[in-house]
Amino acid sequence: MLSKNQLKLIKSLRLQKYRQEEILFVAEGVKLVDELLKSDFGIQQIFATSEWIAAGHLPQNRYLVEIVEITQAELERISVLSTPNQVLALAQIPPSIKLPEIKGEWVLALDQIRDPGNLGTIIRTADWFGIDRIVAANNSVDVWNPKVVQASMGSVFRMQVHYADLELFLAENYKEVAVYGTLLEGISLPDIKLKPGGIVVIGNESHGISDKLIPYISSKITIPAAGSAESGHAESLNASIATAIICYEIRRQYPG
Amino acid sequence: MLSKNQLKLIKSLRLQKYRQEEILFVAEGVKLVDELLKSDFGIQQIFATSEWIAAGHLPQNRYLVEIVEITQAELERISVLSTPNQVLALAQIPPSIKLPEIKGEWVLALDQIRDPGNLGTIIRTADWFGIDRIVAANNSVDVWNPKVVQASMGSVFRMQVHYADLELFLAENYKEVAVYGTLLEGISLPDIKLKPGGIVVIGNESHGISDKLIPYISSKITIPAAGSAESGHAESLNASIATAIICYEIRRQYPG
Repeated sequence: MLSKNQLKLIKSLRLQKYRQEEILFVAEGVKLVDELLKSDFGIQQIFATSEWIAAGHLPQNRYLVEIVEITQAELERISVLSTPNQVLALAQIPPSIKLPEIKGEWVLALDQIRDPGNLGTIIRTADWFGIDRIVAANNSVDVWNPKVVQASMGSVFRMQVHYADLELFLAENYKEVAVYGTLLEGISLPDIKLKPGGIVVIGNESHGISDKLIPYISSKITIPAAGSAESGHAESLNASIATAIICYEIRRQYPG
Repeated sequence: MLSKNQLKLIKSLRLQKYRQEEILFVAEGVKLVDELLKSDFGIQQIFATSEWIAAGHLPQNRYLVEIVEITQAELERISVLSTPNQVLALAQIPPSIKLPEIKGEWVLALDQIRDPGNLGTIIRTADWFGIDRIVAANNSVDVWNPKVVQASMGSVFRMQVHYADLELFLAENYKEVAVYGTLLEGISLPDIKLKPGGIVVIGNESHGISDKLIPYISSKITIPAAGSAESGHAESLNASIATAIICYEIRRQYPG
């Protein structure tokens, strides 16, 4: 049974302001909550239908989690999914960790990614390819936004996303580390011999990479398109697609 | 000024049933409507704020389009965007063209892609890389769904998406054409010498490639992940991400 206060709390967590106040975020659906339970994230409460409870998803080391049994109708009231799926968890936002010094690893530097689906997909893809770190510009979409958590398919429980002033971050690192950036003009990605590590700057969905960051980019990359834009193909690639192609090329040149 | 009937019609087109009845779809926002105007799609009406009308977006060959001036408040009532952007067009769904015979070109065969954002992104990516054709399994999301049109960023006006019984389609072609499919076990993509053309089967977001299609796949592909799933990385890649990586590898081996 769902109380009015629980309903209000869960719905409020769709907004970053309340997530910051409560230090809580929402993860939904059987698969995602399974991933959450496997992680070492603190879980405050789980709201689940009798079906989920009967299926025995709780691992032994999670015996302290409070489970509230709810009906399908109640689940539909708290869910943001188009097809609510058995369970919704309230989990604790972990304390943010200071960005460790960069020493030869791969870092994705996201210049104000706004779309939660894109950020979630980038986290999932980076996790797949074993990219070490993600640094997002301040003002990027919040990693604990329910759509980011959802699109990450649980990778958000494994990959740290650091928020930083990207200009400052690049200024501190560009002398020691290769900085790659996707721009409309540059060297075609398959022709570049990548270093064994470096920073890849990914531009915002509408505006690409900010002008102020461009001076720090040591290698300008283009992803080769077929034909020319004038002959009529897509003007650009989605930010998460461009990121994935670079991550793939990194692992093609340096198998993990 | 927006009439009640116009409001009702536009809202109804969010559902495939009414799009099929009216043979109309919706495209929204300055950039997408610019792309629509550049295409040879029939446009029934454009609903735009005074700002859009004053900016002179209409090319000369489009003088017959009916433009209805609406207020920002009216735009917000008809828009599905989180930030409605000046203009919404009602355009005609083109008649579906019979799938031409496959002769050595590249074809993406989508096995029931359900997420409109994924289908739109796949169309945009295929357009970028100059992939010739897309065949979607019957029951895939409808290409004229507003979110597909939006995510395609206008590529939907250039790329034909054919709907077909994929099993039949593969049965007709697999003897003459290489059929690639992404599966959890297979040859690592960078190690495969691709043919100059073929069919790439992309699995559904949750269930991958249907069992009944697997016998037609001549080359099983995996996209190399870092480490092993047991050591804890993402279990899979998003369907549009996997598609993009294969399209990139095709163009790396066969520049367009």
